[in-house]
Amino acid sequence: MINHMVEHLPLALDSVFHALADRTRRAMVDQLASGERTVSELAAPYAMSLAAASKHVRVLEDAGLLSRTVEGRVHRCALERRPLMQALSWLRTYTDFWDQRLDALEDLLNTEDDDDRH
Amino acid sequence: MINHMVEHLPLALDSVFHALADRTRRAMVDQLASGERTVSELAAPYAMSLAAASKHVRVLEDAGLLSRTVEGRVHRCALERRPLMQALSWLRTYTDFWDQRLDALEDLLNTEDDDDRH
Repeated sequence: MINHMVEHLPLALDSVFHALADRTRRAMVDQLASGERTVSELAAPYAMSLAAASKHVRVLEDAGLLSRTVEGRVHRCALERRPLMQALSWLRTYTDFWDQRLDALEDLLNTEDDDDRH
Repeated sequence: MINHMVEHLPLALDSVFHALADRTRRAMVDQLASGERTVSELAAPYAMSLAAASKHVRVLEDAGLLSRTVEGRVHRCALERRPLMQALSWLRTYTDFWDQRLDALEDLLNTEDDDDRH
């Protein structure tokens, strides 16, 4: 069953995790979490050219994390939540799994404690 | 506050998300979730050389997702849960944030519905 979940949207997860593997792009996600931003606004906090910022924006866009509305020369960017949820869902498969194993181990140890008492 | 959380372990998150941005490495995480594996066992399901598998194992190891115990020529690999939890925690900042915004929007719409009725 876990194997099946790993196969879920593999290429999408490749691009989402790749997009998030850069602190500038994660900071852009953070900016967008408070609302729409233009590409210039996304570039502003960093010592980078608009061209460099645009490349990061493109990586986020390719991963589906960002949608863009073009109004003349202004590109408004918005955060898309679904790919973040997909990445979260993948990670949760393994973190929940471990939680369950730790719970089972704890139960086992408690049972052994009880056995020692008898 | 969200800004502060983004700055949490930025380099660690770079390497964790990078490690997860490859379906073969995600499948290795999946294998390790059921228990320890040797590098040969991790390589087995794929049409890849042991050298290629070792490279993937190294990327997982560098990200802290995998620990290795060497017994002679056998390298036993185990999954480390903490980096998965860190990545999950980062994602949750934004998915929870949106859940709250959607809840707030829903509340607002419900209030407006109530106002319409008066």
